[in-house]
Amino acid sequence: MKPPLKIAIAGLGTVGSGVLQLLDRQADVLTQRAGRRIVVAAVSARDRRRDRGTDLSAVRWYEDAAAMAADPEIDVVVELIGGTEGIARGVVETALDRGKHVVTANKALIADNGTKLAALAEKKGLVLSFEAAVAGGIPVIKGLREGLVGNRLERVYGILNGTSNYILTTMRESAHEFAEVLAEAQKLGYAEADPSFDIDGIDAAHKLAILASVGFGRPVDLAGVYAEGIRHITRLDIDFAEELGYRIKLLGIARLTEEGLEQRVHPCMVPRATPIAAVEGVYNGVVAEGDFVGRVVLQGRGAGAFPTASAVAADLIDIAAGRHVPSFGVPAGNLRELPGVPIERHQGAYYIRLMVVDQPGVIADVAAALRDEQVSMESMIQRGRAPGEAVPVVMTTHVTVEAAMRRALARIEALDTVLEPPRMIRIEDF
Amino acid sequence: MKPPLKIAIAGLGTVGSGVLQLLDRQADVLTQRAGRRIVVAAVSARDRRRDRGTDLSAVRWYEDAAAMAADPEIDVVVELIGGTEGIARGVVETALDRGKHVVTANKALIADNGTKLAALAEKKGLVLSFEAAVAGGIPVIKGLREGLVGNRLERVYGILNGTSNYILTTMRESAHEFAEVLAEAQKLGYAEADPSFDIDGIDAAHKLAILASVGFGRPVDLAGVYAEGIRHITRLDIDFAEELGYRIKLLGIARLTEEGLEQRVHPCMVPRATPIAAVEGVYNGVVAEGDFVGRVVLQGRGAGAFPTASAVAADLIDIAAGRHVPSFGVPAGNLRELPGVPIERHQGAYYIRLMVVDQPGVIADVAAALRDEQVSMESMIQRGRAPGEAVPVVMTTHVTVEAAMRRALARIEALDTVLEPPRMIRIEDF
Repeated sequence: MKPPLKIAIAGLGTVGSGVLQLLDRQADVLTQRAGRRIVVAAVSARDRRRDRGTDLSAVRWYEDAAAMAADPEIDVVVELIGGTEGIARGVVETALDRGKHVVTANKALIADNGTKLAALAEKKGLVLSFEAAVAGGIPVIKGLREGLVGNRLERVYGILNGTSNYILTTMRESAHEFAEVLAEAQKLGYAEADPSFDIDGIDAAHKLAILASVGFGRPVDLAGVYAEGIRHITRLDIDFAEELGYRIKLLGIARLTEEGLEQRVHPCMVPRATPIAAVEGVYNGVVAEGDFVGRVVLQGRGAGAFPTASAVAADLIDIAAGRHVPSFGVPAGNLRELPGVPIERHQGAYYIRLMVVDQPGVIADVAAALRDEQVSMESMIQRGRAPGEAVPVVMTTHVTVEAAMRRALARIEALDTVLEPPRMIRIEDF
Repeated sequence: MKPPLKIAIAGLGTVGSGVLQLLDRQADVLTQRAGRRIVVAAVSARDRRRDRGTDLSAVRWYEDAAAMAADPEIDVVVELIGGTEGIARGVVETALDRGKHVVTANKALIADNGTKLAALAEKKGLVLSFEAAVAGGIPVIKGLREGLVGNRLERVYGILNGTSNYILTTMRESAHEFAEVLAEAQKLGYAEADPSFDIDGIDAAHKLAILASVGFGRPVDLAGVYAEGIRHITRLDIDFAEELGYRIKLLGIARLTEEGLEQRVHPCMVPRATPIAAVEGVYNGVVAEGDFVGRVVLQGRGAGAFPTASAVAADLIDIAAGRHVPSFGVPAGNLRELPGVPIERHQGAYYIRLMVVDQPGVIADVAAALRDEQVSMESMIQRGRAPGEAVPVVMTTHVTVEAAMRRALARIEALDTVLEPPRMIRIEDF
């Protein structure tokens, strides 16, 4: 049997502790599956005394994670510190510089610097892998990069943020508004005290940028991702969605069109019978559409110490067994730029909800605004009657260009009889 | 760049033609992803003149597939002949004997001889891979063997036969009986003239035996799979399933219990809100439950030339790139026997449907039969009233041992007031 693979873990928070426990509890099966032992030789973390659920007395402790990354005895550095600048990046760069493979769960780092870091790793014949950075325990990177390697993808999309999905699911099930459900999620530990990262689509944008790079063989382009969160979603829109046969999901979508590659994160109206609509609560789901394979759906837990540890372990075993795949499926130097399609040029159908004064002529004015921007209405629902008071009006449109839709919405918003800024949710075509 | 990988394809039916088309159309991306070209150097098929959608004029033709498998110029033999004995097996053995990697879509061959063939391959340092043998284009073998490698599985189950799933879905949607839907499926080409392989659970049993071996690290044991098909499923049972909140699915299930490993293929009552219930029509779906990752669901097209070709391509790229994984996740010599649990010792809940004479005392007799075998009833529905005539009575039970359930059913069948053999469908716990 080959000599043990010696790993160092930088960062022993929730995920780090999960990885330690997995390597401990599964040691025998991992040895069989990798063909050699995987040994934790060093760790670095701020608090040395905290209980991580495993015995670390025989493991070297480092205060300085970068110093650990330079330890000549180590074969692989597992970076679980997080964050895009500062320590995490230094650790990864030092490790690669010193000839060590790197496994990371750091989506921000890979979304920001993935292409450069992959090039550095390849130059040295090393592996930089990040299965845990996208969709937790679901093997999406491996699935796209190796499982569907025979395909050209047309679209890859998914529910990439469990917190947002939990909030949207709970709003629908409990009939509560966004703010209440968010507060409850914070109390339960499903949402951070500062929830912006999750609910404004930033976390999902990081993951989408990585998926798009793996799926379409282009350099990671986080700046090219349009991101819109779920703060503006109301119970009323969720009810209308149900009435129209949809569910509202925060999706990250990368789609190849004739103009180039769309990358966008935003709430979507998703037909209720579609597999992604059935991914509820904290679960994540990723759908890939390939020219040969058709539609493949992967779902599972997108976060949490143990599912994330499962993904880290998969990367470690590949390294231990000597199986190397370029980080993004092809060598970093072969990733080719694809023009990005800005959101203004997105073409799709739209759901629009207005609050209007219930009086004759309102719909005619709205319809005229749509017509003037060549937006074609598909359906309209006006619910309830309350002459002279505010009532909701919902419309769906045929496929239109987003810029035209936005101009039409500006016209509509300017109407005296329209009482609030119109709400717009994109309808994705499945 | 490394020299091209030279492959030979044995069998140019639907799948073989799909593989040829994929290798032709995706040649440039495959070369990038594999780091070398993949070249079809030889093929064997009965009819040389049929159009396979690609130009084969430069390819060596063999009448005799086994002779082709011995061709010293070939690096990999792709076996797409099918069938467990005879030509297919000979081709695979010859290829391995002569030092060639093998990729096959042949589930019967792997379910019957997989462990032996894997051992032969490993002895020679060769790869024997069969992603295409289970669930078509869905990367389930790679998903279990590599993506979830950090887990001990508790259960793996799935919809493994698209024909049966299509029939059950259509029965529910069209309100037609089994025989009509089967005839229609045969007309559409979704079912064979002799449909037994699909609808009696044999095909699913082959796939389950392979999944169980990969998932639980034990030698393939097709003989240990209990298989029951869908011929006895009626519209009436589908309606009752809906009423009880279930859907009826033909599942293949491998589950580790305290007694050993259950391997069973049979119709199941599946709660409607569970992901596997949403896998409809010809789609396949596989669910793995791991101790760290939790529940992971993979779904997609389980058959067809192009999805199957996608799986074959994934195996070829791994070989081309020099990535070797033992066929069943661990070396064949390390697969360890696990005691099988015969179906009579299965413990679960049951759905029972009787046709009884609508007269006083019938339910009391049935209840007494259940009590005498210690089977505990959970619910009962008697629909409609027709004094003196036949009416359906449906019961669900609490968890019980199958042997006791069968004895109770024998007692019930013997009652004068019970007009037809009772129908029994297992309820799976999710």
